[in-house]
Amino acid sequence: MNSHWYAIIMAGGAGTRFWPASRKRRPKQLLALGPDTSRPLLAATVARVKQLCPADRIIIATGEHLVDATQAVVPEIPQENLLAEPVPRNTAPCIAWATASILSRDPDAVIAVLSADHVVTSDDGFVQAVSQAMRVAETGTITTIGIVPTRPETGYGYIEAGADRSDGSKEALRFVEKPNLETAEKMLASGSYLWNSGFFFFRGRDMMAAVERHLPDLAGGIEKIARARANGDDREILKQVFPQLPSVSIDVGVMEKVSPLAVVPGDFGWSDVGSWQTVWELAQRDDNDNAAPEGSLLVDSRGNMVADLRNSGGKRLIALLGVENLVVVETDDALLVMPRERSQELRKLTDALSRLGQHDKL
Amino acid sequence: MNSHWYAIIMAGGAGTRFWPASRKRRPKQLLALGPDTSRPLLAATVARVKQLCPADRIIIATGEHLVDATQAVVPEIPQENLLAEPVPRNTAPCIAWATASILSRDPDAVIAVLSADHVVTSDDGFVQAVSQAMRVAETGTITTIGIVPTRPETGYGYIEAGADRSDGSKEALRFVEKPNLETAEKMLASGSYLWNSGFFFFRGRDMMAAVERHLPDLAGGIEKIARARANGDDREILKQVFPQLPSVSIDVGVMEKVSPLAVVPGDFGWSDVGSWQTVWELAQRDDNDNAAPEGSLLVDSRGNMVADLRNSGGKRLIALLGVENLVVVETDDALLVMPRERSQELRKLTDALSRLGQHDKL
Repeated sequence: MNSHWYAIIMAGGAGTRFWPASRKRRPKQLLALGPDTSRPLLAATVARVKQLCPADRIIIATGEHLVDATQAVVPEIPQENLLAEPVPRNTAPCIAWATASILSRDPDAVIAVLSADHVVTSDDGFVQAVSQAMRVAETGTITTIGIVPTRPETGYGYIEAGADRSDGSKEALRFVEKPNLETAEKMLASGSYLWNSGFFFFRGRDMMAAVERHLPDLAGGIEKIARARANGDDREILKQVFPQLPSVSIDVGVMEKVSPLAVVPGDFGWSDVGSWQTVWELAQRDDNDNAAPEGSLLVDSRGNMVADLRNSGGKRLIALLGVENLVVVETDDALLVMPRERSQELRKLTDALSRLGQHDKL
Repeated sequence: MNSHWYAIIMAGGAGTRFWPASRKRRPKQLLALGPDTSRPLLAATVARVKQLCPADRIIIATGEHLVDATQAVVPEIPQENLLAEPVPRNTAPCIAWATASILSRDPDAVIAVLSADHVVTSDDGFVQAVSQAMRVAETGTITTIGIVPTRPETGYGYIEAGADRSDGSKEALRFVEKPNLETAEKMLASGSYLWNSGFFFFRGRDMMAAVERHLPDLAGGIEKIARARANGDDREILKQVFPQLPSVSIDVGVMEKVSPLAVVPGDFGWSDVGSWQTVWELAQRDDNDNAAPEGSLLVDSRGNMVADLRNSGGKRLIALLGVENLVVVETDDALLVMPRERSQELRKLTDALSRLGQHDKL
């Protein structure tokens, strides 16, 4: 481990794509949606990242309303390493703020920006790719990891990779928005496109310089917050300044503009776990392709994604007879049934709840 | 009301066709499966029958293990009117025993045998038809009610009706087992077949004479029990004798053999509520043909039968997205999801539970 290595784990989230399991106050990273059903995605992420830097150099950026729940899931992270955004302002303000706070501790910090709610099935592959990306970042080049695509996925953004660089990475030529299937198939066939993981690596000072150059308003706001923190208490100024920061993603606000940008190809069983469909794909399944809690009674049923995420009420038998490719999820206060292939349309339900004013279910 | 009129309400049942709502200890008649979701079928039946005879002349025949639950549902029935069979022995022993117990109170009793778990949507039509059948029975002819069929139902037995009798009923010529669709269509078209309601009407003495003639072993056993009861306590003898009685249905053991047998056509929105499919048919449904608890969130969903029969755990939101013609039923300890059209196959699940030794769920 390099003593200047830090990680920022982005752990915000609206909690709509995994309703009814995910809620505003219990977004995806706090749920055990990965193949490891014994711990929340955030806990698995922190365990993985601890192979790269110790807990006291892991910063978790989350929302104010999520601080307690986050702390409960990763108690090993020091409380002062939890950055609580007063309001969500997309990724650029979050990363700039976290970077500034790390720089106040260590001006030579090299930082990995990672997501709290992704799945990685090969921890070794992850550590190897991140280490390589960090070493490229150490040389002063902002770097990303591009996932080697395994299918013409239309749910991810892509990065076009160019020439090999001398440090073993490649030039990142451009970001491509989520494509249609035809474009995705062409990109897959070309062999020169990678999935945008949303992971970024940089020296703290390089990121701040890039923010100053490309997002000067953001840099100014962060500067104010950092000064207040240096003077002892940034809480008041945070509440004033943070909501005024430009709401822009790091991809659009910075990454698409910096040059050179390096990309390290990664192949470590990555998924951003975008929907119940993905959870089903990642889950352990029986001979009939059902993912269901042990003890479920499944007769003439195939391809179902069943989850019991209740915390109370005791053991309950889930019995399916003659159904295929359904999602059946139950929590203490809600039950969802839908076809698995409609996982992406779950927003129709959360939007309806919102319209009906049922905010206690969101 | 005629002071010699009595009713025997048969309230046994295995509790498999409405799993997970129905259980061995909570069979169908104890559930609110009718269009009146405010009370169990048995309570609705007793309320209806009280228009024909008072509570103290209503006898409820049930299983020993169901006595307490039954009493709780119909507290107005005197405890001594609950006959508890030590083991189920089909309908003939049940009816003979109940008849004998009524005769010991009133040798001139005229008795209606009714089921605890049927639905009737027209109470007036029911009272009118039963009254007519009781008046025929008073003249010494065993009588049944045949339901005027509204469709070529293959789930019911039929009765062939013959010539008009002078008392306004018809001759019952023969019983027909559940037919195939072709036969059912022919019977419907002929206009001379009625559905077998399983309701029977007779003077107590006529039934005992018929049992003595057609089922002498049964008559002998019932005689022993009646004698013990007259001497103060029939509990011991009941345990010895009842399990030895021939297990035979009243239809096969008696009704198919008595002549003349009268049938009164009835048309009062009758259903034997045979499956979740029937519950759905009888239930109040929304514009998309969903029967679901108030407050359910149904998006792009049609024809579903949703029931929340939990007693604990607080209010729970049931949300369906894009599903059609499903049965979704939840109780405190189980959740069932199946296509509505497979309602008749529910036994596959209860059989599997039995094989797995999960008797607490049966």
